[in-house]
Amino acid sequence: MPNTGRDYDITVGCFGNPGSYSDQAMKESFAEKHIKPIYYDHFEDVVQAVSAGVVRYGVLPIENSSTGGITEVYDLIHRYDCRIVGEQYVRIEHHLLALPGTTLKDIRTVYSHPQGLAQCRDFLKAHPDWQLQPYFSTSQSAERVQREGGHDAAAIGNAISAELYHLQVLVPHINDNTTNFTRFVIVALHTEKRDGNNKITLVLTVRHRPGALYHVLGYFFYAGMNMTHLESRPIKGRPFEYFFHIDVIGSLDDPGVVKTLDELAGNCNYFKILGNYPADTGGTTDEIRTDRRNVGP
Amino acid sequence: MPNTGRDYDITVGCFGNPGSYSDQAMKESFAEKHIKPIYYDHFEDVVQAVSAGVVRYGVLPIENSSTGGITEVYDLIHRYDCRIVGEQYVRIEHHLLALPGTTLKDIRTVYSHPQGLAQCRDFLKAHPDWQLQPYFSTSQSAERVQREGGHDAAAIGNAISAELYHLQVLVPHINDNTTNFTRFVIVALHTEKRDGNNKITLVLTVRHRPGALYHVLGYFFYAGMNMTHLESRPIKGRPFEYFFHIDVIGSLDDPGVVKTLDELAGNCNYFKILGNYPADTGGTTDEIRTDRRNVGP
Repeated sequence: MPNTGRDYDITVGCFGNPGSYSDQAMKESFAEKHIKPIYYDHFEDVVQAVSAGVVRYGVLPIENSSTGGITEVYDLIHRYDCRIVGEQYVRIEHHLLALPGTTLKDIRTVYSHPQGLAQCRDFLKAHPDWQLQPYFSTSQSAERVQREGGHDAAAIGNAISAELYHLQVLVPHINDNTTNFTRFVIVALHTEKRDGNNKITLVLTVRHRPGALYHVLGYFFYAGMNMTHLESRPIKGRPFEYFFHIDVIGSLDDPGVVKTLDELAGNCNYFKILGNYPADTGGTTDEIRTDRRNVGP
Repeated sequence: MPNTGRDYDITVGCFGNPGSYSDQAMKESFAEKHIKPIYYDHFEDVVQAVSAGVVRYGVLPIENSSTGGITEVYDLIHRYDCRIVGEQYVRIEHHLLALPGTTLKDIRTVYSHPQGLAQCRDFLKAHPDWQLQPYFSTSQSAERVQREGGHDAAAIGNAISAELYHLQVLVPHINDNTTNFTRFVIVALHTEKRDGNNKITLVLTVRHRPGALYHVLGYFFYAGMNMTHLESRPIKGRPFEYFFHIDVIGSLDDPGVVKTLDELAGNCNYFKILGNYPADTGGTTDEIRTDRRNVGP
């Protein structure tokens, strides 16, 4: 197989297809770098590729604003013993995409993921004659419109799939709720030492007794560490035990932080640091990031 | 319009289509009752119908085991000032459904929601010649197989849509992960007084200061109240503030519980009791319910 990448390209495994929101997260996160992306259909394939050394980094969604943390992704990261080395927030913005020259009155069929169709309900209601055609994903819908080549079809998808598949944005911002966002993580085999590592993601389980979580939070409270995310999940097949996914602000270079986490770990049934990385503070999603950054419940 | 329902039928608004997992939750929850269901395509339509008195109860999903709480549903319940009066856990079990007489080798096309197709990945890998056809939902896929009437098509869906659309279960339990479940809530305009109301769902926001959540949990800890669910969510457009969705075990008939909640409410920016209702302890999902019941983190 010919080596198509330059020697200095960084291999990145990305969930989904070219033009997907994961692809957008990858491109924003590695904006300054030369990357050689490999796309995978399933979360596990991405993490497995990182674990096996096939790719240096993996990019996959870990949290949606509408449904919360994606348990499977947390599970995979700690099952394959990977680390979170970065995060990227992406705003979900759907546009109506079609071949250049298409007008609204040409359209007969609109392709998208069922969720994409549902999220643009108000816009689509104004065009009751369009046939809504569910498809695998927003990016594959855009690809299909390009491939079929007709002016009677449109896709609901993002701006980068428009660019990738040479479609025009016929109507921008057609989703009902304009503040949906997804948080993506960049995973690798090892934590990367950097000055800007100011966010720590933990997975832990506590012994079953009343107030166990209360005592866990006490460690952070008395150490003055801000939590930015907290979620509880039942553990499969182990009644009366819960996983907690916790994000706190702090650096593993700070001896006080390390001491607090060590003491906490001694009081948990299971404790693992999934990563220490820079909180997402760049890019184009200021309003959203502000919601999530350095927030101490 | 003729009145097609019996006088004693209870009207229930159900999210989704006949044969959906929401429909299954409704049928299990109202198993002993005569109901007259009305189906709605969107979460908001269900809650709006309850709020307007069009239906007495509404049934909609509030939490998935794979992605966590569904923020939009929490938001709708408190925006329309409704109450949770019951809950129902449903295990997500996909089967391969086809017209009676169909054999595996007849099949050319398999319809389902993209997520249904993704959740049966391992099974479908053994049949690489089948064309996978995304559709709006699992139940509508079953309906389509019945409507088209051919032996070359199958749908991925649940047992009740098989029954409803007169399909046979050609291969049962084809999903990769057999422990996915969804938690549904039954909503109404007012809390219903009952002896068995042993679970309370709260939504609250706390002032932004370090350890605020720690102090919230302290109220439950010192009152000996077990929490079964805790999730934090950012508030749209209000940086540095968080919503918390909390389930605790307790009854509003217990003066000690009421006193604790009153004191807690006084220390929150926003505090609302979304409902007091019986924890789901019946039905066929024992293993799953045990994971979630009376568990005190």
